[in-house]
Amino acid sequence: MFKASITVTLRPAILDPQGKATHHALENLGFDQVERVRIGKFIELWIDVPSAEAARAVARAACEKLLANPVMEDFEVAVTVG
Amino acid sequence: MFKASITVTLRPAILDPQGKATHHALENLGFDQVERVRIGKFIELWIDVPSAEAARAVARAACEKLLANPVMEDFEVAVTVG
Repeated sequence: MFKASITVTLRPAILDPQGKATHHALENLGFDQVERVRIGKFIELWIDVPSAEAARAVARAACEKLLANPVMEDFEVAVTVG
Repeated sequence: MFKASITVTLRPAILDPQGKATHHALENLGFDQVERVRIGKFIELWIDVPSAEAARAVARAACEKLLANPVMEDFEVAVTVG
């Protein structure tokens, strides 16, 4: 069994209202050192395949078909034994 | 400037209906090798402080005060120069 840890992030050109709201909330709490906030998704998949390479291929296909919006989002996949 | 990359995940004992729904959607698309799905948040903070240690401290405080729910969620912070 392998675990794929996937981060899905908005592309840099895409506005991130959730990040903006979080930034304002942090400022209101006194976190003046925080200059910018971006919010994405973190997805963990447990995949039953024989190799890490196969797990990475499944995870990338899942991102392309369902988990990420290719117009607005980028994704990264890290595979570990899990 | 440092970048803190934060993953916020539901604690293992907490039900994850979003993960369950995503798992079903993946099964319907033919991803039978996926055994389990958990969904969390990925948050990037750009922090203007003199050292990576200080950036990590700001990011952890932001998680404890706002970004994570300590009853239901765990978080991990990774700091890079950004």
